[in-house]
Amino acid sequence: MPPAAPTFRTDALVIGAGPVGLFQAFQLGLLGLSVQIVDALPQAGGQCVELYADKPILDIPGLVECSGRELIERLLAQLAPLAPGWHLGQEVTRLTRRDDGRFDVACAAGTAFDAGAVFVCAGVGAFQPRRLKVPGLDGLEGRHLHYHPGTDAATLARFAGRRVLVIGGDEAALSRAAALAERDGQPPVQLMHRRDVLQAEAPLLARIDALRQTGRIVFHAAQLAAARQDAAGRLLQVDITQPDGSLCTLDLDALIVCLGLSPRLGPIADWGLAMERKLLSVDPATFETSQPGIHAAGDIVSYPGKKKLILCGFHEATLAAHAAHERLRPDERGPLLYTSSSTLLQQRLGRRT
Amino acid sequence: MPPAAPTFRTDALVIGAGPVGLFQAFQLGLLGLSVQIVDALPQAGGQCVELYADKPILDIPGLVECSGRELIERLLAQLAPLAPGWHLGQEVTRLTRRDDGRFDVACAAGTAFDAGAVFVCAGVGAFQPRRLKVPGLDGLEGRHLHYHPGTDAATLARFAGRRVLVIGGDEAALSRAAALAERDGQPPVQLMHRRDVLQAEAPLLARIDALRQTGRIVFHAAQLAAARQDAAGRLLQVDITQPDGSLCTLDLDALIVCLGLSPRLGPIADWGLAMERKLLSVDPATFETSQPGIHAAGDIVSYPGKKKLILCGFHEATLAAHAAHERLRPDERGPLLYTSSSTLLQQRLGRRT
Repeated sequence: MPPAAPTFRTDALVIGAGPVGLFQAFQLGLLGLSVQIVDALPQAGGQCVELYADKPILDIPGLVECSGRELIERLLAQLAPLAPGWHLGQEVTRLTRRDDGRFDVACAAGTAFDAGAVFVCAGVGAFQPRRLKVPGLDGLEGRHLHYHPGTDAATLARFAGRRVLVIGGDEAALSRAAALAERDGQPPVQLMHRRDVLQAEAPLLARIDALRQTGRIVFHAAQLAAARQDAAGRLLQVDITQPDGSLCTLDLDALIVCLGLSPRLGPIADWGLAMERKLLSVDPATFETSQPGIHAAGDIVSYPGKKKLILCGFHEATLAAHAAHERLRPDERGPLLYTSSSTLLQQRLGRRT
Repeated sequence: MPPAAPTFRTDALVIGAGPVGLFQAFQLGLLGLSVQIVDALPQAGGQCVELYADKPILDIPGLVECSGRELIERLLAQLAPLAPGWHLGQEVTRLTRRDDGRFDVACAAGTAFDAGAVFVCAGVGAFQPRRLKVPGLDGLEGRHLHYHPGTDAATLARFAGRRVLVIGGDEAALSRAAALAERDGQPPVQLMHRRDVLQAEAPLLARIDALRQTGRIVFHAAQLAAARQDAAGRLLQVDITQPDGSLCTLDLDALIVCLGLSPRLGPIADWGLAMERKLLSVDPATFETSQPGIHAAGDIVSYPGKKKLILCGFHEATLAAHAAHERLRPDERGPLLYTSSSTLLQQRLGRRT
């Protein structure tokens, strides 16, 4: 029998590490609640990082211009002193209310939570990568086949010295191919897209061009036809089909596939929460869903007047945090504290000892 | 007969230039509406500048730490490309609904507006300075007697070469005394507070100490007893009472008085808007008050769950702007546009030609 997966007991479980989930965790931590964060993607940032990492956002109050990636970096830095627990690359699958009013929550990978309150900041749903369907890939995922892997240094290091084929033609594929190809000692990175028309912001396209010039990236206008494994289940080769119909074989150690992410509400739809047009109905005073103790904020919620703007999600998360705090810590009721004047809040944020 | 004061015709009139008023103007301008901003104080910033200019705010999303003054500077920079009209140092006194659904709004100083919608972002009300009550001050205000004057360079320049007494012992008084005393060619600035115990952040106190050491600030622990004017109504001298009861006379050209600001809801309370505990009741879907076309956002509003946080005001102002836009421009209804992808919004913000 495998060892039991750990169960994390926490005041608050935040589902979703996009901008609203990160600020949800900040407000909860600021109120003195313990927080665990879970996200299906291998890195924080949600749509901000997956869909518009380098696009300018111009309507975050006080930030004249800020890319999606920069906004996430800023929110992570703001959250850091509150030290929430992180569970990235994990999809929440099951949620059940216990008799004592707390929640049992389980992830597909086995991690479990015992949470006093749950905050669904899942945006448009858990992002699911579009998967390849060709013969020979069975059993490779997670070892030799990686869909939209993280772009952090630790993840990149796992590909050190390996012969990698990156499949895809947009920002997600190109940024991973470039980052890998720019590592010292890395064999040339193979990049494949069905046509030699790549889509990304100009600076990234220029990086790719330069890497192709020096041979550190080898480009193929082709499509994957099949993969071959050895007896031990290691990836050996792939066959690719070129535009003229001819086949070509590449020797490989790993496949990185970035063919897009599709949001999927997934199991959240099965938790018995009232919904309207695939969105969670919430009370705009508490951002509580139809189930007491389960709150929601950001693009996933619906209420009269709702606008799907990041800055509105920040407000929603704030009222959700305060409502949950009142329920979980009724004895701490008191006047609203301000970070500009409260020694307690400043201590929690590491500004005072 | 004096010339008629100007009337400004505008889509939107924003009352209050604190952080929420500034972002209210930003969202309105982003939606393509023309905007005029009026505030009773001589400078933008409201409480952020008057009450905690140098205090750190730690809960603005994406800004790990930001002083009140820095937040205002950031919001002003964000608003700048939308070029609203500015009317600072003017208190709105009268508001009447016209038969065509627009609003006639008048300021005490005579400026008038013909506005399609009104946004009350007045925080805790219009700030009124605490006034001195001693003999000899009649008729001096605005010429030789200035309550909480602006701290911008143009305002400071009006005191160039003049012998000034600054009255007050906190940040507002000390920052003005220091800024004035640090100007080249300025006669020594007199600073008076009832006791030699000054209150401000450490860097400002250090500046004051240094200026007292070099004689550029002359401090008096005393209170104002009387003022004397010449036949032409110019300020000549003031008498001050020292702690031992003795009188001392100072020759002066101007008095700057910073004895605190008290918010006063003032005429807003007379506009027939539904209120609850001195706050304006609003619909949280539109942030409309009980009068169609008059919206409100920020510390002045009340609705279920309301928290008096700046970041919540940003959300309130955003929904107010969208609701007003739908009413004023029903033909422009369409999907929500995003600054990261909409060429139109980017053009309005001066990012594209």
